[in-house]
Amino acid sequence: MKKKDDSETWIYGFNPVLEAIKSGNRVSAVYLSIQRDKGASGIAQPAAERNIPVRFEDRSFFDARFPKGHQCVAASVKRVCLVSLEELMEAPGKADEPAFFVILDCIEDPRNFGAIIRCVDAAGAHGIVFQSHRSAGLTPLVAKASAGALEHANLVEIVNVKHAIEKMKKNDILIVGAEAGSKRTPWDVDLTVPIAIVLGSEGRGLRRTVGEMCDLTVSLPMKGGVNSLNVSVAAGILSYEIARQRSGPA
Amino acid sequence: MKKKDDSETWIYGFNPVLEAIKSGNRVSAVYLSIQRDKGASGIAQPAAERNIPVRFEDRSFFDARFPKGHQCVAASVKRVCLVSLEELMEAPGKADEPAFFVILDCIEDPRNFGAIIRCVDAAGAHGIVFQSHRSAGLTPLVAKASAGALEHANLVEIVNVKHAIEKMKKNDILIVGAEAGSKRTPWDVDLTVPIAIVLGSEGRGLRRTVGEMCDLTVSLPMKGGVNSLNVSVAAGILSYEIARQRSGPA
Repeated sequence: MKKKDDSETWIYGFNPVLEAIKSGNRVSAVYLSIQRDKGASGIAQPAAERNIPVRFEDRSFFDARFPKGHQCVAASVKRVCLVSLEELMEAPGKADEPAFFVILDCIEDPRNFGAIIRCVDAAGAHGIVFQSHRSAGLTPLVAKASAGALEHANLVEIVNVKHAIEKMKKNDILIVGAEAGSKRTPWDVDLTVPIAIVLGSEGRGLRRTVGEMCDLTVSLPMKGGVNSLNVSVAAGILSYEIARQRSGPA
Repeated sequence: MKKKDDSETWIYGFNPVLEAIKSGNRVSAVYLSIQRDKGASGIAQPAAERNIPVRFEDRSFFDARFPKGHQCVAASVKRVCLVSLEELMEAPGKADEPAFFVILDCIEDPRNFGAIIRCVDAAGAHGIVFQSHRSAGLTPLVAKASAGALEHANLVEIVNVKHAIEKMKKNDILIVGAEAGSKRTPWDVDLTVPIAIVLGSEGRGLRRTVGEMCDLTVSLPMKGGVNSLNVSVAAGILSYEIARQRSGPA
């Protein structure tokens, strides 16, 4: 195997690899296990259709390189193609829909980052803005946790998310921060207007200065013994409330 | 340290240990790191107030016993106290609320199991029924992923969840299965009536025979490139749709 240059990275796991194969031309080679048969054709066939070379390796090849859950499926890929903030801002118009953006203010856990990409993409978000510093980057674990949604989502990496918020505000997009303890619930708010939801870090929530930039904040009522939700679950609930309101009257 | 008998187990991580201390008397001893100072008083003080012995160990003590994320906080605890199906069925009446139960049909990933407990408890579920076989058990990882919600939730372990479904149907509880591809969305359904939602396993969804027992099935519309949601995110969305509908007219 030749040495991979900086523009190449790994992804692993059945779904992330399958979605990468399906979504475009960033896969250089697919790796499957010699021992594996069940399900391998589900990868080998779409790879062959796209003329992507398939290599067979011993199980130890995968164990040495990837965490548990690799399923003996991996791919060498070019880095994810990001979009610019300008391109993102054009996406809702092209889809003829009111904007639905997600802004991540310093999500640190790659598993949460991937899980958020997966659920907001499923709910119909036009894209996700994340910060290059003090945040999880686009690692193979993020790809895995996104179950491949990473391949389809519009992702914007930016030095400071505050710049994206400013730009969106100038374009009349309502900035809605998710903040524990806010008295307003998402179902109190009209979410059918052009909107960006802002999610803060796992431990500390929104940065103060980011919270102050939001037009309003919402939180989910907490009834149980523990007063918090995982940030990806909160993202899913908020995003599907947007989808519900936009689906028309119940 | 004396050998722990079968009725004792470990939990680890700040929140799970704190919630176990606060919730009752199942904690036998708390373990903190000698090196740790930041935040340790948040555990040591409530433990002392309840006369729970605190032991100080080297960091290696924690690394040897627990996965990453242990935060140098652990506790030796008695097993979680489960409730019976009969006790669970009485919970809504005591709270003067329409029933809101969650039934787990073979959730295999302990992280998902814990995450589901955390979010449905926060949404106000009266309890969770899970199956003793072909499911994740109540391991320390489940406690960790539940962020301590495990300590507060009513949990019913049963040989086969079908028995719980039968019993609930006899008590006029609407059985709503979450099933990918169902044409009905949760917001098409009146969820203010007494209800149990049934969630299937990560890979295969509801078992066929369980799906057939449901009064109706719902699924969330999928707009993105990947056609699935993590089961704990789906649980959160469904549970908060129940909470929304029960909170009265928007």
